[in-house]
Amino acid sequence: MVDAAKIRLAVERYVATVGSGTSAEIAALFSEHATLEDPVGSEPLVGRVAIEKFYAALDSVKTSTELRTVRVAGDSAAFVFRVVTVTADKVIAIEPIDVMTFDADARITSMRAFWSVVDVQAA
Amino acid sequence: MVDAAKIRLAVERYVATVGSGTSAEIAALFSEHATLEDPVGSEPLVGRVAIEKFYAALDSVKTSTELRTVRVAGDSAAFVFRVVTVTADKVIAIEPIDVMTFDADARITSMRAFWSVVDVQAA
Repeated sequence: MVDAAKIRLAVERYVATVGSGTSAEIAALFSEHATLEDPVGSEPLVGRVAIEKFYAALDSVKTSTELRTVRVAGDSAAFVFRVVTVTADKVIAIEPIDVMTFDADARITSMRAFWSVVDVQAA
Repeated sequence: MVDAAKIRLAVERYVATVGSGTSAEIAALFSEHATLEDPVGSEPLVGRVAIEKFYAALDSVKTSTELRTVRVAGDSAAFVFRVVTVTADKVIAIEPIDVMTFDADARITSMRAFWSVVDVQAA
């Protein structure tokens, strides 16, 4: 099993990469057959190709992120983070709670994001 | 499907009841065959009887709780809350991130608590 310190680092790297990386760099943090359910309740995406496509929406906007709270348990982590997105005509902020599982190399094997439209704020 | 407002209320009620209710009152918030995995990575408990026994540890200590952050998505919620427990010789605080699913009556059908010993603080 992957240790807690490695999981914590993987969470920090994910949040930092969402803030300043490309969709390809974000997708590289996931295992090949990882699943992504964002928001929870939507149809999960499967596989790194679909996951890179999902994050491609971030490639054309300026994003900054900040990790708030992380809890590691077993091979999983839950964490609160803030994402601020700057588009041509507005700035929006959201603080999802994400749950992830990790493989032995601390690659993300699943991600589920808890948030809804009521959590999207003008920043 | 249960609506988001009912889920939010159910989370508030759970946190309040952990703070001031009995184990029987907490267990009553769960559906009959609910599962509880606390912390994540441990063997899940199944059913309201086992769940009441789990919370019975709280019946002999003074506990206070505070809800910090709630995110509702689909039939699920993730939330950060603070639990302060006062025993004969010490006061400890922990802020887990819990994930719950709910049935149509907003009863808890599953609970998973993300925390580990490193998150337990002297308060």
